[in-house]
Amino acid sequence: MDVISVAGKQAQLTIDGNELLILNSALNEICNGISVPEFETRIGASKEDVCALLNDVSHILDKMMA
Amino acid sequence: MDVISVAGKQAQLTIDGNELLILNSALNEICNGISVPEFETRIGASKEDVCALLNDVSHILDKMMA
Repeated sequence: MDVISVAGKQAQLTIDGNELLILNSALNEICNGISVPEFETRIGASKEDVCALLNDVSHILDKMMA
Repeated sequence: MDVISVAGKQAQLTIDGNELLILNSALNEICNGISVPEFETRIGASKEDVCALLNDVSHILDKMMA
């Protein structure tokens, strides 16, 4: 994962397939696998938000593998 | 998280601070928090690789918050 630029609260970056797979697996475990006690406190976001991000990552992976 | 382009096994994307925080928390839980049985099978990568990615995400967050 390499940063191209950071502007305010937005970053542009490059990420490779292996890194995306790790993100996908980690988010998937957090959302659908392992039980995380006090989810919102520990993750700092609702399960809904984390699943939405998992969905984004998964779509990018699909594009990459197409 | 929005895709700018996908070329081979590399993607360029934009990500905002909230999404980076979720990735940071998810990777941190997987690496240092919750015990993940059969880590490499479930995540598809070694703990070392996941911690390296956590390190990258954390550096980008630091830049964004600076």
